[in-house]
Amino acid sequence: MSEVIASYLIHDKNSDFHKKAEGIALGLTVGSWTNLPLLEQEQLKKHKGRVVSVFPLQPCDRVNQYLDNEVNQAIIKIAYPTANFSLDLPAILTTVFGKLSLDGKIKLIDLEFSKELIQAFPGPRFGIEGIRKELNVYDRPLVMSIFKGVLGKDLSYLTEQLKQQALGGVDLVKDDEILFENDLTPFEKRITHGKAVLKDVYEKTGHRTLYAVNVSGRTFDLKEKAKRAKELGADALLFNVFAYGLDVLQALREDDEIALPLMAHPAVSGALTPSEFYGFSNSLLLGKLLRITGADFSLFPSPYGSVALPFEEALSISTELVAPNHYVKKAFPVPSAGIHPGMVPLLVKDFGIDSVINAGGGVHGHPDGAAGGGKAFRDAVDAVLKGQTLQEGAQNSPELSKAIDLWGTVEVKS
Amino acid sequence: MSEVIASYLIHDKNSDFHKKAEGIALGLTVGSWTNLPLLEQEQLKKHKGRVVSVFPLQPCDRVNQYLDNEVNQAIIKIAYPTANFSLDLPAILTTVFGKLSLDGKIKLIDLEFSKELIQAFPGPRFGIEGIRKELNVYDRPLVMSIFKGVLGKDLSYLTEQLKQQALGGVDLVKDDEILFENDLTPFEKRITHGKAVLKDVYEKTGHRTLYAVNVSGRTFDLKEKAKRAKELGADALLFNVFAYGLDVLQALREDDEIALPLMAHPAVSGALTPSEFYGFSNSLLLGKLLRITGADFSLFPSPYGSVALPFEEALSISTELVAPNHYVKKAFPVPSAGIHPGMVPLLVKDFGIDSVINAGGGVHGHPDGAAGGGKAFRDAVDAVLKGQTLQEGAQNSPELSKAIDLWGTVEVKS
Repeated sequence: MSEVIASYLIHDKNSDFHKKAEGIALGLTVGSWTNLPLLEQEQLKKHKGRVVSVFPLQPCDRVNQYLDNEVNQAIIKIAYPTANFSLDLPAILTTVFGKLSLDGKIKLIDLEFSKELIQAFPGPRFGIEGIRKELNVYDRPLVMSIFKGVLGKDLSYLTEQLKQQALGGVDLVKDDEILFENDLTPFEKRITHGKAVLKDVYEKTGHRTLYAVNVSGRTFDLKEKAKRAKELGADALLFNVFAYGLDVLQALREDDEIALPLMAHPAVSGALTPSEFYGFSNSLLLGKLLRITGADFSLFPSPYGSVALPFEEALSISTELVAPNHYVKKAFPVPSAGIHPGMVPLLVKDFGIDSVINAGGGVHGHPDGAAGGGKAFRDAVDAVLKGQTLQEGAQNSPELSKAIDLWGTVEVKS
Repeated sequence: MSEVIASYLIHDKNSDFHKKAEGIALGLTVGSWTNLPLLEQEQLKKHKGRVVSVFPLQPCDRVNQYLDNEVNQAIIKIAYPTANFSLDLPAILTTVFGKLSLDGKIKLIDLEFSKELIQAFPGPRFGIEGIRKELNVYDRPLVMSIFKGVLGKDLSYLTEQLKQQALGGVDLVKDDEILFENDLTPFEKRITHGKAVLKDVYEKTGHRTLYAVNVSGRTFDLKEKAKRAKELGADALLFNVFAYGLDVLQALREDDEIALPLMAHPAVSGALTPSEFYGFSNSLLLGKLLRITGADFSLFPSPYGSVALPFEEALSISTELVAPNHYVKKAFPVPSAGIHPGMVPLLVKDFGIDSVINAGGGVHGHPDGAAGGGKAFRDAVDAVLKGQTLQEGAQNSPELSKAIDLWGTVEVKS
């Protein structure tokens, strides 16, 4: 039967998790069961939720002290038949974590979609392979940089910053996620002027950089704006999906008149993921759900910076984005924040070739400016892929050398 | 200057909250300040964030033990100029709690909108007064009941349940929030058949009941569906706003071709609110933000049931919904779950006349069925408003008498 299986982490004083699981499986589907006449059971069979498993965990002193209570933990899995909902994420989320999200200490840690159900979702339009084809870059991590300090600045400031970043050889530049529609640097002009600058750089250097412009504003205007961006020749869209909804991302992905790479920013997602008791796991929200709804790139806090995720969590997002799946393409993991060129060996070790190395301060803060910063990253990547140390790579790269002098290198433990 | 002031609850090892606040105010606006040339400071002045206040709280042993660390707490308020964002909630949320939501233990507890900014939001189309006018009911709390166990059931089952509920004299009936588009009880038929049943009841009893139908499916189809609902004569829409986005609710509110009362369901909001360290406060999310974006009703867990909110939190939602505000109408608080007729005196005391008394099991589980359950609630309300005890009211109401026998009464401490 087509179904979605939800995994929950539950903390509860009560230790009878089997009973609790059964209560959820019935309460969120047919309501009751054993009291029903056989005929009604027969009618409702295809709607009945099912307890898949109950896996008790060890109690945790730290948690018990905090809650001032003896609390038991378990992971329970419940299967919900597809017959119960329309094939859209809002209906699925309301089914598996609607009322239940309000019912005590419960965190949604995974959703497993049956193969019939997963096909209701588009996955990335381009995916890792498609983006590589756009860029004609195959055997290395991509390098991305971020506009900085652009509020209140005009178009000439923005385009000069874009030019410097592109000259450094980065593959992607993304808008600041807090740059919205404004008089100084309007959306359409950012696209057309940005395009002209990147064309110049391409003609001079032969290097192609994609610019992801922030598509923002009211929800019901987004598709028209995105289509306009496409018409004007935009390369990609940055989207603050968690300020809207995953279903909106999916709609932007599915519209063939848009057909642009989609870069999902994690803004606001920290309201949903970090609690150990509530919300969504990062691997589900920033990994699996962004991928199936159609993000080509998922940005998330790297495990290294001041705004950091625990290492295992960052890795779990990346794993979801690139795991083999017959039905949806892979999406690029973009571990972000706190990244400088000296960390490239670590990033490649942790996130592999199929990832994007993304930096703000680590590009703009370079002694030679953004162009030098980008070059330092690219040279660091080249060194790592040749099996060289960064110090070896720096011998032929003054930019990498200066970056190492400024930020140091991070040792990779094998 | 027009601005939004965000209040955050922060837990941090570092106790220099002034420095932290300054970092946020600059980092999320102009980036840096003191190093800038005076001319640039002049240009950027209107974009610069501002620390409004820093209010340290007492450290908490329980929290320190849990975090295995000495942690300080403070409430800090930062003002963000309206010049920095477009006048939509996604832009505001991304500005005030985008990247910041990912930056350690931080919870967004309030947003204060300047009077220029609040006017960008519609507030409820009907509001408490408008809904009362629709129902011609002025001086008492409204009574609402909820469909139960409707998955896999057909239209005749649904309409019979609707009829029984309406016969009991409830003012409102809402769809089950997990009932989506389906072959047995399609959206349009629910509206037309429901309307016919409620017309019958009105002709027989003179009592008018409004039915809130669940508008669901893909985001970009919602407006058309809602307009179709309006054409077919729907009374109101139920909406799982947190499975979509607050901006979608606002769009449904603003469309004059829809113009239906909007009932916001809290499904999925439990992923955002219950942590003491992260996410949104309930008063902001289920109170202020639902109200300004246009909900006429906000459902939230009552403080009494098994799925419960702490009393102060439930009350804080209600306070936000009905607080005097020159620019937005009031919205009905609907404390839900665990409600039976014996709790009516308590509900009236806690949430006042301008609230909705909402029950599922407390209506359907009545010995005389849903019709008896509704009647018991209505009679309980009448008794309370006459200054009678429920026992006094029950003398002339066999339905209330049976309800009290079954569920008891809850003592109100004055």
